[in-house]
Amino acid sequence: MGVREACGIFGVYSERKGYRAAETVYNGLISLQHRGQESAGIATFSNGKLHLHRGMGLVYDVFKGETLEKLPGMAGVGHVRYSTTGSSVIENAQPFHVYAPGMELAISFNGNITNYAEMKEKLMKGGNTFVTTTDTELIGALFSNEYAKRKDIFETMKAVMGQLDGSYCLAILTSAGHMILARDPKGFKPLSMGRLDGGWAFSSETCGLDAAGIEPERDIAPGEVVLVKDGKAEGRRLFNEKRTAHCMFEFVYFARGDSVIEGIPVYGAREKLGEILARLYPAKADCVVPVPDSGRSFAAGYARASRMPFKEGLMKNRYIHRTFILPSQELRDSAVRAKLNPVKGIVAGKSVVLLEDSIVRGTTMKKIVKLLKQAGAKEVHLRVGCPPIKSPCYMGIDFPTYMELVAANHSVEKIREIIGADSLGYMTIEGLVEGIGLGKDRLCMACLTGEYPLKQKPGKETRVKCC
Amino acid sequence: MGVREACGIFGVYSERKGYRAAETVYNGLISLQHRGQESAGIATFSNGKLHLHRGMGLVYDVFKGETLEKLPGMAGVGHVRYSTTGSSVIENAQPFHVYAPGMELAISFNGNITNYAEMKEKLMKGGNTFVTTTDTELIGALFSNEYAKRKDIFETMKAVMGQLDGSYCLAILTSAGHMILARDPKGFKPLSMGRLDGGWAFSSETCGLDAAGIEPERDIAPGEVVLVKDGKAEGRRLFNEKRTAHCMFEFVYFARGDSVIEGIPVYGAREKLGEILARLYPAKADCVVPVPDSGRSFAAGYARASRMPFKEGLMKNRYIHRTFILPSQELRDSAVRAKLNPVKGIVAGKSVVLLEDSIVRGTTMKKIVKLLKQAGAKEVHLRVGCPPIKSPCYMGIDFPTYMELVAANHSVEKIREIIGADSLGYMTIEGLVEGIGLGKDRLCMACLTGEYPLKQKPGKETRVKCC
Amino acid sequence: MGVREACGIFGVYSERKGYRAAETVYNGLISLQHRGQESAGIATFSNGKLHLHRGMGLVYDVFKGETLEKLPGMAGVGHVRYSTTGSSVIENAQPFHVYAPGMELAISFNGNITNYAEMKEKLMKGGNTFVTTTDTELIGALFSNEYAKRKDIFETMKAVMGQLDGSYCLAILTSAGHMILARDPKGFKPLSMGRLDGGWAFSSETCGLDAAGIEPERDIAPGEVVLVKDGKAEGRRLFNEKRTAHCMFEFVYFARGDSVIEGIPVYGAREKLGEILARLYPAKADCVVPVPDSGRSFAAGYARASRMPFKEGLMKNRYIHRTFILPSQELRDSAVRAKLNPVKGIVAGKSVVLLEDSIVRGTTMKKIVKLLKQAGAKEVHLRVGCPPIKSPCYMGIDFPTYMELVAANHSVEKIREIIGADSLGYMTIEGLVEGIGLGKDRLCMACLTGEYPLKQKPGKETRVKCC
Amino acid sequence: MGVREACGIFGVYSERKGYRAAETVYNGLISLQHRGQESAGIATFSNGKLHLHRGMGLVYDVFKGETLEKLPGMAGVGHVRYSTTGSSVIENAQPFHVYAPGMELAISFNGNITNYAEMKEKLMKGGNTFVTTTDTELIGALFSNEYAKRKDIFETMKAVMGQLDGSYCLAILTSAGHMILARDPKGFKPLSMGRLDGGWAFSSETCGLDAAGIEPERDIAPGEVVLVKDGKAEGRRLFNEKRTAHCMFEFVYFARGDSVIEGIPVYGAREKLGEILARLYPAKADCVVPVPDSGRSFAAGYARASRMPFKEGLMKNRYIHRTFILPSQELRDSAVRAKLNPVKGIVAGKSVVLLEDSIVRGTTMKKIVKLLKQAGAKEVHLRVGCPPIKSPCYMGIDFPTYMELVAANHSVEKIREIIGADSLGYMTIEGLVEGIGLGKDRLCMACLTGEYPLKQKPGKETRVKCC
Repeated sequence: MGVREACGIFGVYSERKGYRAAETVYNGLISLQHRGQESAGIATFSNGKLHLHRGMGLVYDVFKGETLEKLPGMAGVGHVRYSTTGSSVIENAQPFHVYAPGMELAISFNGNITNYAEMKEKLMKGGNTFVTTTDTELIGALFSNEYAKRKDIFETMKAVMGQLDGSYCLAILTSAGHMILARDPKGFKPLSMGRLDGGWAFSSETCGLDAAGIEPERDIAPGEVVLVKDGKAEGRRLFNEKRTAHCMFEFVYFARGDSVIEGIPVYGAREKLGEILARLYPAKADCVVPVPDSGRSFAAGYARASRMPFKEGLMKNRYIHRTFILPSQELRDSAVRAKLNPVKGIVAGKSVVLLEDSIVRGTTMKKIVKLLKQAGAKEVHLRVGCPPIKSPCYMGIDFPTYMELVAANHSVEKIREIIGADSLGYMTIEGLVEGIGLGKDRLCMACLTGEYPLKQKPGKETRVKCC
Repeated sequence: MGVREACGIFGVYSERKGYRAAETVYNGLISLQHRGQESAGIATFSNGKLHLHRGMGLVYDVFKGETLEKLPGMAGVGHVRYSTTGSSVIENAQPFHVYAPGMELAISFNGNITNYAEMKEKLMKGGNTFVTTTDTELIGALFSNEYAKRKDIFETMKAVMGQLDGSYCLAILTSAGHMILARDPKGFKPLSMGRLDGGWAFSSETCGLDAAGIEPERDIAPGEVVLVKDGKAEGRRLFNEKRTAHCMFEFVYFARGDSVIEGIPVYGAREKLGEILARLYPAKADCVVPVPDSGRSFAAGYARASRMPFKEGLMKNRYIHRTFILPSQELRDSAVRAKLNPVKGIVAGKSVVLLEDSIVRGTTMKKIVKLLKQAGAKEVHLRVGCPPIKSPCYMGIDFPTYMELVAANHSVEKIREIIGADSLGYMTIEGLVEGIGLGKDRLCMACLTGEYPLKQKPGKETRVKCC
Repeated sequence: MGVREACGIFGVYSERKGYRAAETVYNGLISLQHRGQESAGIATFSNGKLHLHRGMGLVYDVFKGETLEKLPGMAGVGHVRYSTTGSSVIENAQPFHVYAPGMELAISFNGNITNYAEMKEKLMKGGNTFVTTTDTELIGALFSNEYAKRKDIFETMKAVMGQLDGSYCLAILTSAGHMILARDPKGFKPLSMGRLDGGWAFSSETCGLDAAGIEPERDIAPGEVVLVKDGKAEGRRLFNEKRTAHCMFEFVYFARGDSVIEGIPVYGAREKLGEILARLYPAKADCVVPVPDSGRSFAAGYARASRMPFKEGLMKNRYIHRTFILPSQELRDSAVRAKLNPVKGIVAGKSVVLLEDSIVRGTTMKKIVKLLKQAGAKEVHLRVGCPPIKSPCYMGIDFPTYMELVAANHSVEKIREIIGADSLGYMTIEGLVEGIGLGKDRLCMACLTGEYPLKQKPGKETRVKCC
Repeated sequence: MGVREACGIFGVYSERKGYRAAETVYNGLISLQHRGQESAGIATFSNGKLHLHRGMGLVYDVFKGETLEKLPGMAGVGHVRYSTTGSSVIENAQPFHVYAPGMELAISFNGNITNYAEMKEKLMKGGNTFVTTTDTELIGALFSNEYAKRKDIFETMKAVMGQLDGSYCLAILTSAGHMILARDPKGFKPLSMGRLDGGWAFSSETCGLDAAGIEPERDIAPGEVVLVKDGKAEGRRLFNEKRTAHCMFEFVYFARGDSVIEGIPVYGAREKLGEILARLYPAKADCVVPVPDSGRSFAAGYARASRMPFKEGLMKNRYIHRTFILPSQELRDSAVRAKLNPVKGIVAGKSVVLLEDSIVRGTTMKKIVKLLKQAGAKEVHLRVGCPPIKSPCYMGIDFPTYMELVAANHSVEKIREIIGADSLGYMTIEGLVEGIGLGKDRLCMACLTGEYPLKQKPGKETRVKCC
């Protein structure tokens, strides 16, 4: 729980007669909605022209009425954006539209360019001006400059990606009829590919393909660029680095449980992590209770491995959203209680093992433990699916600042005391690697270890911008 | 799943110094939000005056900004209303405000008056006019007429309730400083009572009290009226009928799992019903899968009793709401797929027992079974927590018409065929009674049996109006 | 200038094949918009049913999209409502809808019932309850009661009107197919009638008929009721009082200049009043300047009679509306300057005669005079078309309270001093009567003289409610 | 009448302690609102940072609530934008924000760059990309490029203006603390300057200064650039062309009557033009009637010169705005009648001289003449303050296309016939020059004569873009 999101991108192309890409992108975005609720947008290509609609809010709200009908064409890209402080403006909504020499671009971007400031300065020296502070405009300018010189998409993308540091997935549509997909050489962010009748689709997560009725085929490889044009799709791995760095947090929290990343079913990884927690931190208790909804798969794994009963001992109010600002201080103080209600019949007089995916600030968890105790729980044994988060993320997760990360400043025992749990077991780095199953040198665990798999470690002043 | 809701009412009174009832009512309504999302309202009493704010939409939206601050006083009643076709207008939002001789009333009502037409005609002959078609205005007029004659709240309520047929719970606030709670003699709808510092609170479900930090104490008895005035609360059971009729659907679907109705924890009843289904309809299968979220407790019970693993084989998109009208026909056809995605890793190649709370039309269930099969499920054995729904409800549930109820027109075997399941097991009447645990003569099961526990069976033309 | 409005009502009935009343009513209301901007509504009659749409805001905003199309039928009534403090809620929007015994009513009302409290109490004793505090609901209840007894529209209206005191015009549509128009026996508020192909139309002002392309025919007489039914219109003067009381303020300010009331063209009356002011208060000056837009006709008359040039020496910003609440105190202080800019080329170094229709508080006029002086005007001679307003209006004008009326508390010389004008000439009572041309015993001048042409003088506590 | 608008710009700088520029800009924009109602925006400078708020709609709507408070600083620029087909999007709202090397810019622009396409291509070749199709982004890029080379504002502006063709006024604020005002070498668009305590203000029209309580001082000269920085304002006339070209349409229609352009009071020019019309086209008639509000000054002049009475024979409905889209075809057909109502008492049986500022398509004028005749006017003699408009404007007026201009395709006699007037007198070129009083070689009359005072005549494909 807490504000930790990532953006989502989607693209589709089909030569099936009368195919309308916009509706497939819509379906895909609806299923990527958990990756961003601030803004949504779709761009399509038809007859040498790009068509674009963007807006603030949920996909459903942005594409009310006849907006979808006004996006013709058999190719389209879309985007859902998450909300970061101070940048919630329509100008930052994506796909981003750029007039480049000879063609227009619509760009959907997910990630964070860590050498943004340096690259921007370089481009400005070359005569560029910028109207936003987004990574996406930077990429548009860089692409345009390189394409003007090289006139070849793969050459251009190689030059572009060679200059960028950080994490990124891209879905670019051009008014010349290209659809370009790219994933950074480390593969920080997920990007999957599927086949449909007469074409191909691309989605941050496989659940987006599923929702659109498209069979997932494979992940785009780290460093790969796929170019779709004139009924053909060609993928080239332009960068082939040994050490890749898939964000471990996608497995732990971001991705939807029904998605499959790098061949690993997400729900399965979470259940496995729960089993490992049961092995690492057994507890004498009456039942296993998840923090809904994020702790559920972990709790299922813990319950199975520990042979303790799984019990829904916390009931979630489905009508309280993240964006709720309750209308009085008194109400804000009681917000966790309004959101989560302990089920007395389950927890009263019982020792419970409480499962959560991760802890950032620890403030919500403290309130949950207090609620359970007030409801009569004898003991609360907290088990956390993710190791202590100690370092900032520069690759796209908008964690609170260093000072607010409870694990950056306190020992596990101290955290247990703060939270008020009777015992506290955090996943270990080794357990995390085992649970996900990809191997240590294929994961980014920088927020846990402080080791950043980047060309250059970002300075302290680096801010996570958007997507 | 499907559109089946009930309204929710809440009331609170406290003599604690500086107590602001509006905030407690707000908290309670937030937790009763699942009972109605169309409109919300709060009325408070302060210094001989009623203060009222109502609006369309969720509690959170209706009470944005400073609306709560403008509702002073230590006593208040609130309401959340569900949406029925054609009546979604602000005029129907509650609490309903009536100018009666000598005082004003704010009325929160939940139920359906089955002799509405007859009573309205009677009152009109006596000189009344009406500006809405709501039961609530009728009750306001009836109360006013009787109170003008009797000048005593209990006498008045006895006269009012003696003339009404149907189901109702009432929370009435008057400008003379009374707070009146009432439950119909059969007790169709739930209404619980709790104690707080210096006062009392009342809520359709105990989860509303929990959310407001109030200890539930007991249910208001069928036929009971509670009058709170001048720091005292007095309850009198004005009608004491042997046969009561608690709506079985509150246990099966309406109520939140963490509520307790007539001493029965709702989640517990659902788990028990799941266990009974396992006993009645065992299945050779690999796992038990709930239709989220409503089938989860049933599935937990079935899994435990059958010793099969519980698996979250269907992933729900939390951003698709009931009110979504997708912007094209193609998208509407694929709505269930966007809302529920089978988790292939769980269901592919497996026989699954699928648990759902109830079936109304059967159309959604047919699509879910199809999705599971497309995802590779070998067999789908459907188990349903509620017996076949065959008859209309006149007591407040807005079921589809008779013609649309799949069980009113088809045998179980035919339904299985329509839905495409490999086997289908419906709860039995006996199993339902056992699972809830209240005894046959304390439940209303009219929609299952066609036997209506009313003074007079409603004619065919009777329409469910609101709340 | 200042907040002084009245409501507007409109009705139309035509037997022309395929006639859609809603669009004519819409056109009429658009032209009555100056009489009320708070809410608007239209009710139509078709096949034994009433259809109604109301909303807050301007006619144009309330009837956006397809709302008009959903109002079928060849008969309709409409309403625009003005805004009074504290009552700006959708429940007060009109036409008001009432369920009466045997039929439904949609009522458009314009005026103020001065014996409201007394009549309400009487009806409540008879068993009525009320859900609003509007005169309209009272009239609906009274009509229903009387109609139940008498079963004849004229008889009913005679009984209703016999019990009411105050000012009112009514347009009532019933689900039995009647359209009923009525004007109080004194004729306080205007109501005109026109003929169209196959039917009749009715409008608070003739400009509403003009806008709908309908030829005005005559005024409804004071005390007259017109019943339109089954293709026939019958008017009966149920009350024939000698002394009538047309509101002089309609001629001075409310009515649009192109309307004709009781045979008097409104712009003509205003020009005449300007001429009389020139005769009563000549001035040695260079030009005559109106306060736009309300002072223009007065200024034209003054200029003609005095043979001085008419000059638009104050420019009005057409984008600043009454409802503007400027976003800072500094801006609010400069609001008059933003709204009215002196044209230096016209006023600098000149003596000007400034014409305004009337003065209520005097605060705005003080600012205007100051602006003119700052722009270099040598002298400002203020001439006012309406005599000093000294008494409250109980017949439908929402004047400020007694304490705020500058003329209720100060002599003309003192007012001149407060305002800062070099001379000040108020219209006299005799001049007003001469200018309008109807004769003293046909005008209501209660706010000038304190003599109320009512059955009973209202007590101090009487509040102007709405319309 | 018809859709003919121009944008408006405003800037203010004051060193007075605690001065808040935003509120002055707000006041100025409110009074420039007639120049554009599509979007509004304000940018301010404070402590090395630019602060910006923009939105769609009227100034009042865009700056509701606390938006103004969030714009700190003693320097600010603002903009109101008019609506052209197809470009009504928030991205085009101004001031436009650009990140240039070393500093940020906020640009308010009014005009039309006729060599836009050529300049854009040139900049793209140099590596620039663009995200909009606005002239403003082009100017931002050009400024940035030149400033990077020259590091001096006047040098930069000289280089920028030397490359641009077309009409423009600019108000630029930089994060380095410059405020830059510029007017193109021909002076197509007006730009005035005023003094306030501790600083200077700039406004498209003097009425903007008046509204902000600022004394107008002089016009910015054609080709002049004013730089305000560090408490000093320096103006340099970088281009000093003999032939200037002030848009005659500002005098005829755009500008507010209380503005003064190039020393000429606008209302005075209009009255003079009316007098000239009386001389050129005398008519035997009973009265002079303006088309409100634009024909009023012309009519006043005509009436004075002809010694005929001035009569407000057409009443305007102040609640019908340009943006009204009436909700049915029938209503749209009657739109002119709803907007303008002939006053029968004035026109019936009379010969009237009808005064209008200009005629574009002629369709509205045809309806007005018809309305007057239906109201009984014996004869309608139309006099038009502007000569026949025959050629497109490339300098910022969004005239209809050539094909729609009635005077481009028909003789005056034919136009008279189409419109249905009894006589028709158009202003002559000579009369226009005389009436405005600036001399032929200081006016742009390209739309009348086809002679474009540009470096290069635009090709047919040139589209007027925005502002």
